[in-house]
Amino acid sequence: MEKKIKMEMEMEKKIKMEMEMEKKIKMERKGRLNKIIEEAGICDARYEVKGMNIWLPYGLKIMKEIDNIIRREVERTGHEEFCFPLLISEDSFKKEAEHIKGFGSQVYWVTHGGKRKLQRKLLLRPTSETAMYPMFSLWIRTHKDLPFKTFQIINTYRYETKQTKPLIRIREIHFFESHTCHKDYEDAEDQIREDLKIMKQVADDLCIPYIANKRPEWDKFAGAEYSLGADSYMPTGKVLQIGTIHQYKDNFSIPYNIKYKDEKGEEHFVHQTTYGMSERLLGAVIMLHSDDIGLILPPAIAPIQAVIVPILFKGKEKKVMDFAEMLHEKISDKKVFIDRRDDMTPGNKYYEWERKGVPLRIEIGPRDVEKNSVVLVRRDSGEKKSVSLDVLRDEIGKELEAISKSFYERAKKLMDENIVRIKDVKKETKKKIKRKIVKFNWCGRGDCGHRIEESLDISILGTTGEKEKGRCLWCGKECDMITYGGKTY
Amino acid sequence: MEKKIKMEMEMEKKIKMEMEMEKKIKMERKGRLNKIIEEAGICDARYEVKGMNIWLPYGLKIMKEIDNIIRREVERTGHEEFCFPLLISEDSFKKEAEHIKGFGSQVYWVTHGGKRKLQRKLLLRPTSETAMYPMFSLWIRTHKDLPFKTFQIINTYRYETKQTKPLIRIREIHFFESHTCHKDYEDAEDQIREDLKIMKQVADDLCIPYIANKRPEWDKFAGAEYSLGADSYMPTGKVLQIGTIHQYKDNFSIPYNIKYKDEKGEEHFVHQTTYGMSERLLGAVIMLHSDDIGLILPPAIAPIQAVIVPILFKGKEKKVMDFAEMLHEKISDKKVFIDRRDDMTPGNKYYEWERKGVPLRIEIGPRDVEKNSVVLVRRDSGEKKSVSLDVLRDEIGKELEAISKSFYERAKKLMDENIVRIKDVKKETKKKIKRKIVKFNWCGRGDCGHRIEESLDISILGTTGEKEKGRCLWCGKECDMITYGGKTY
Repeated sequence: MEKKIKMEMEMEKKIKMEMEMEKKIKMERKGRLNKIIEEAGICDARYEVKGMNIWLPYGLKIMKEIDNIIRREVERTGHEEFCFPLLISEDSFKKEAEHIKGFGSQVYWVTHGGKRKLQRKLLLRPTSETAMYPMFSLWIRTHKDLPFKTFQIINTYRYETKQTKPLIRIREIHFFESHTCHKDYEDAEDQIREDLKIMKQVADDLCIPYIANKRPEWDKFAGAEYSLGADSYMPTGKVLQIGTIHQYKDNFSIPYNIKYKDEKGEEHFVHQTTYGMSERLLGAVIMLHSDDIGLILPPAIAPIQAVIVPILFKGKEKKVMDFAEMLHEKISDKKVFIDRRDDMTPGNKYYEWERKGVPLRIEIGPRDVEKNSVVLVRRDSGEKKSVSLDVLRDEIGKELEAISKSFYERAKKLMDENIVRIKDVKKETKKKIKRKIVKFNWCGRGDCGHRIEESLDISILGTTGEKEKGRCLWCGKECDMITYGGKTY
Repeated sequence: MEKKIKMEMEMEKKIKMEMEMEKKIKMERKGRLNKIIEEAGICDARYEVKGMNIWLPYGLKIMKEIDNIIRREVERTGHEEFCFPLLISEDSFKKEAEHIKGFGSQVYWVTHGGKRKLQRKLLLRPTSETAMYPMFSLWIRTHKDLPFKTFQIINTYRYETKQTKPLIRIREIHFFESHTCHKDYEDAEDQIREDLKIMKQVADDLCIPYIANKRPEWDKFAGAEYSLGADSYMPTGKVLQIGTIHQYKDNFSIPYNIKYKDEKGEEHFVHQTTYGMSERLLGAVIMLHSDDIGLILPPAIAPIQAVIVPILFKGKEKKVMDFAEMLHEKISDKKVFIDRRDDMTPGNKYYEWERKGVPLRIEIGPRDVEKNSVVLVRRDSGEKKSVSLDVLRDEIGKELEAISKSFYERAKKLMDENIVRIKDVKKETKKKIKRKIVKFNWCGRGDCGHRIEESLDISILGTTGEKEKGRCLWCGKECDMITYGGKTY
């Protein structure tokens, strides 16, 4: 009997989750992401040049928190920050043939200065290889200069012809890019292992689970030996690439002439890697962690982690405000904001901060002052509890951690539950994989890969090293490498 | 007798100062600024697109310190940070006629995306009025939205046809710009008074004295009602504009339709101001405060304020290093760096940090360890003193303050001593004003102004409100407003 109830409850839970999911997808289609971006004050997408958005103060603050997490990780691992110019000459750009092929149709060309036609056409960087590498060839002399690890956080420009979408597919991209040079292939591989650790750390802080896939040949970065993509599963059922890491081998160092002398005085071309991330990280955060009210920020990137809202009953205003100010002072090392506005009801303040995704709210009324405590409210669960002043600091820390943990776990669960192992391309299978990440065996041949993509209407994301025996989904050949696929943004 | 000696000493001092000055000017002509920028690792000017330089890690750190001082001041006064797109459409740009006239010949035009010709030409912002103001007209609704105070720190682009010079005249400008909207002219004037206070605070931190001049009509910003320029005197004898503040009145709000409803529901156009600064601030710092060895940074913008150099005698390495690490830990709240490299002599380390302009050096040898003290060395004066560990923190603070004070005073003295009051445009006068800032009476008429500029081969910088009776240098009419002039960058 008990078992039956339990099963029914499980069933109910599952149905509820599925309904939630359906609701989210519907909202997404109706522009849920855009709505949250607007209501939380992240970007304004009404700028006259399509695909280029204005960063509003609150959005810019969140993005800077993300940048600082990235900066912390890459500086910790010995990368130095540079800032290269935006404009690149056509000559420089054209040195690496694959690269220009990959980006040629996407670059903005500057042809005139004032009324004068420029002697050399210039382009806005779509990524900075071709701006940086001529300088690398001047800077790097001997093995002592290696490994050479650089990064920058700048904007890149791509003339997207597909439909644009704020934070996800835009023409002015807020871009992190690291570029490193190494003495040989193996040292560059070490760098890629380090990059994967950095990716994990950043994504953990943002509570974003992902799969690191080695892209198929036809989907690697223009000029790369191979490319890795960090693929995150979104509640819409689509996969968002939130980071990419590339092994360049000496594909760029040869045309750009980046050489070093080893201990014996012999010259070698360096091996290179790059790593890129963008405001898609914030896009993923919003899609994964917001609810019907709006944004909820993972604590690590919240410009305000807790907001103090004093509840000002008539005649007790001073008492409550004094208490609130004292409290604010006491925890001023935390990211806490005190909402002092007196022309707004507490309810309206709650609603505003909820929509801005502040993870914790601290309510203070006259009774709390008497009890020397506050009411601590979690934005994600709505959970309230009375917390005495002397343990408040610890409680804030604990709750923030609990929110992070719960966010990550929920998103991880969502992803895991939506991975489907398939063994054929039959009609029933096609139904089963709607809005899923699929895993399957693929022999690795390009022809089979393209046929699988067409037949399932998905993109092959790549391989992770995971193995399981089976037959290639298309040709039936026995093989053991597991391949991931899905619908992508 | 004593008096004679004193006079001779004064004379000698004066001659010495003049010789120093001559030397600096000669060095400047030989590219002293460029040399320091290169040797301190601030920028690399060898980038293939002329007038666009690469920010190197150390230079970028210094520039960020400057940005943070600016950010601190404008946030303190209620400005919010935005980030607007780089690209502006031709239509938007052309709305304010004076503005386009002023910048038309200097803008970079983007005409193609990939191989496709763009339907609407786009331009790289030379400044952001025309990007921002169409949005301001959407955001500002009522008097409650005013004053509306924004800023951004971004790059702007100007196709300079004059000779470029790193940090001083470039085509990719690291730019701070604030833009504010007000209910009326007087409220905008209040903003300008606030801007002048911010300018003073920023320049004080950078130890840059300046004169705030109201520019003559023909030299105001394109579209402005009037413009103020902060003019700093450089050791080369030329004047560098390090900041500009503009009163726009409703000159932009009318074409861009930025209106608000007042308490009675009546509509009015807003009044606007802007304020701009750039990496010229760093250029001024270098020209004013460096010496024959190289850069010396004002403490407020030094990424490293004191460098610890352990002197590792054989057999005593561990003792000294342990002491150095302990010390470093003790003052870790200050901007202190410990140079742990073991493949370099202390002498070479000193030289490197001197050229990077670190204001203080902390030397630790075995004897210092025994005495529980360190040797503190000032970069500017070379002054050394032994400081006991328990007062080190205070001493560092005091010395940094003393350096700032001395920098400011020396630069102020240099400027004051090079201001010459003139009353005619005779040949002898012309000789007297070589490499000087001149002050004189001018009736204010454009014709007289231009004639004065031509005849003295200077630019009129403007007026400060300072008054003294006299006759217009050109027409001889009696007038009392003092006008400043000089050679400018």
